[in-house]
Amino acid sequence: MQETRLDTDRILAACEVIDPVFLNTPLYRCEALEPHLGCAVSLKLETANPVRSFKARGTELITSLIADAGASAVVCASAGNLGQALAWSGRKRGIVVTVVASRSAPAVKLDRIRALGARLELVPGDFDQARERATALAEHYGFRLVEDSLDIETCEGAATIGLELADTSPSFDAVLIALGGGALATGVGHVLKALAPGVEVICVQPQGAPAMTHSWHSRQVVTTDATDTIADGVAGRNPIPAVLDDLLLVADDAVLVQEASITTAMRLLLHHAGLVVEPSAALGIAAILENPTRFAGRHVATIICGGNVDIDAYHRWVGATPGRRDRSRPCS
Amino acid sequence: MQETRLDTDRILAACEVIDPVFLNTPLYRCEALEPHLGCAVSLKLETANPVRSFKARGTELITSLIADAGASAVVCASAGNLGQALAWSGRKRGIVVTVVASRSAPAVKLDRIRALGARLELVPGDFDQARERATALAEHYGFRLVEDSLDIETCEGAATIGLELADTSPSFDAVLIALGGGALATGVGHVLKALAPGVEVICVQPQGAPAMTHSWHSRQVVTTDATDTIADGVAGRNPIPAVLDDLLLVADDAVLVQEASITTAMRLLLHHAGLVVEPSAALGIAAILENPTRFAGRHVATIICGGNVDIDAYHRWVGATPGRRDRSRPCS
Repeated sequence: MQETRLDTDRILAACEVIDPVFLNTPLYRCEALEPHLGCAVSLKLETANPVRSFKARGTELITSLIADAGASAVVCASAGNLGQALAWSGRKRGIVVTVVASRSAPAVKLDRIRALGARLELVPGDFDQARERATALAEHYGFRLVEDSLDIETCEGAATIGLELADTSPSFDAVLIALGGGALATGVGHVLKALAPGVEVICVQPQGAPAMTHSWHSRQVVTTDATDTIADGVAGRNPIPAVLDDLLLVADDAVLVQEASITTAMRLLLHHAGLVVEPSAALGIAAILENPTRFAGRHVATIICGGNVDIDAYHRWVGATPGRRDRSRPCS
Repeated sequence: MQETRLDTDRILAACEVIDPVFLNTPLYRCEALEPHLGCAVSLKLETANPVRSFKARGTELITSLIADAGASAVVCASAGNLGQALAWSGRKRGIVVTVVASRSAPAVKLDRIRALGARLELVPGDFDQARERATALAEHYGFRLVEDSLDIETCEGAATIGLELADTSPSFDAVLIALGGGALATGVGHVLKALAPGVEVICVQPQGAPAMTHSWHSRQVVTTDATDTIADGVAGRNPIPAVLDDLLLVADDAVLVQEASITTAMRLLLHHAGLVVEPSAALGIAAILENPTRFAGRHVATIICGGNVDIDAYHRWVGATPGRRDRSRPCS
């Protein structure tokens, strides 16, 4: 098999660098969800840590290397979770962190980035415009630019989740992974293909932000003009070619889900698993809801990748009453 | 020092018996909560597992011993969480489980007990009436009776949480523990006094169910005629003398909190930690809210001991809008 940019030995070594508070996260069958999904479901919970997402696995790795190299200032573009994680990991190591984010990112994410001591610059437009601005800041000030999914440490940090999933016996039949820039999907996918090759690796993206999924199916980069989804954490328009190349090697499928399925999945996770998750973290459950036949009778794991959500928006999406009809309201 | 019924070596050995899915649960600083509490706060999260409470640490231990002894049927009285945990652990070991619960226990807890294959018998009245009925069933049918807090395994299973807390460096200044029957408080308290004696052990009970706290302060069993609290998991009227004796040895204090503080604490945990918790799990945060001076500038840990809550009731207590005024509604 052709090789990805990732290296399994480096990923194993990463576990020694990443703060243990982000490792060995809960992984458990959630039987209360199963009657609603028609398959066995295990949850890998990445929200019970100081930054409430998986992103610190990568930022721990990257800031450790940056600190070792003597750099003292970094900048990243972020939909919100990477910035929060980079702020946390940078603060711990005395690195000055600048985060560029879209003005429309969830307030809870922006507030936490500031609270963790990072400098926050807001730009109009979306994540891809934040990327352009971060690149300009890095060039102008000589900051080290951290690029999510392109920087191999962001993928290999996320890949440590794959080690914890691959360690499960018996293996899962399939793992459902939220797909945005691709760090999580290529990371976890790489490890599963290396250590548990019988597990089907399925990426899930919203129909309102389908660039990487379209690229995967076309086997070449496909960009889109805009995104339209509540799943802010995965809403990119411009896939990175090197990341797509990796994804083509490790993903067995990439599927798109509707906004209504995302909100229904969030509601199921609240009512039957007691979990408040951000929309991106509900993509896997949404994929089961949209194609129950595919998963019937199988044992599926999905990564609950983040829980940073504005609680007002959350209540609008999920509703306050069990059984209430879907009230999804895609951002425009 | 006089000795409790618990044994630290047995507690260490228990970690080899308890299913790993219940061990090494998340323990992390939650800085987003701290501006609202005026102290450093770490959360020990016992809700991200197949039964959504800490109780399976004890039932894993007790069912393992029961299975080794060749018994095949057990009965317990439960406010809901013990029954769910005993059903899970019993099913795994081929033990027939009967649970007696109050008709007024949360539906979510009762539904999960049934779904896990246990026989559920509902009684009018409260937890203490369920205890009487469970004892009668055990005598009549020869079932092994599992008595929460009295059976040493329920305390020593819970005590493994103490091992995970004591392993933290630097230690916490105080640990806040929900107090009901006393298994959690005596278990965790025993380990902390043995392994981290500088940590202040503070038990927290609702004013509406104060029997054990009154007993601790009086140094003798004090019973009450009724309970009146939304914290169903800790609502007992008749403390067990042997458990009180242990608690007198390991607790530094026992405090009572108001219902309004419990709902405010639940709301803070939702808005700033992204956690849906049952009322009993919010008692520690409620205690900080009621006495911020006591905890100012200290590092406090609290055990988020359960997340099984009827979501309709939860929304009534917590409200859908951040900042909305308290809408606590004690059960009558």
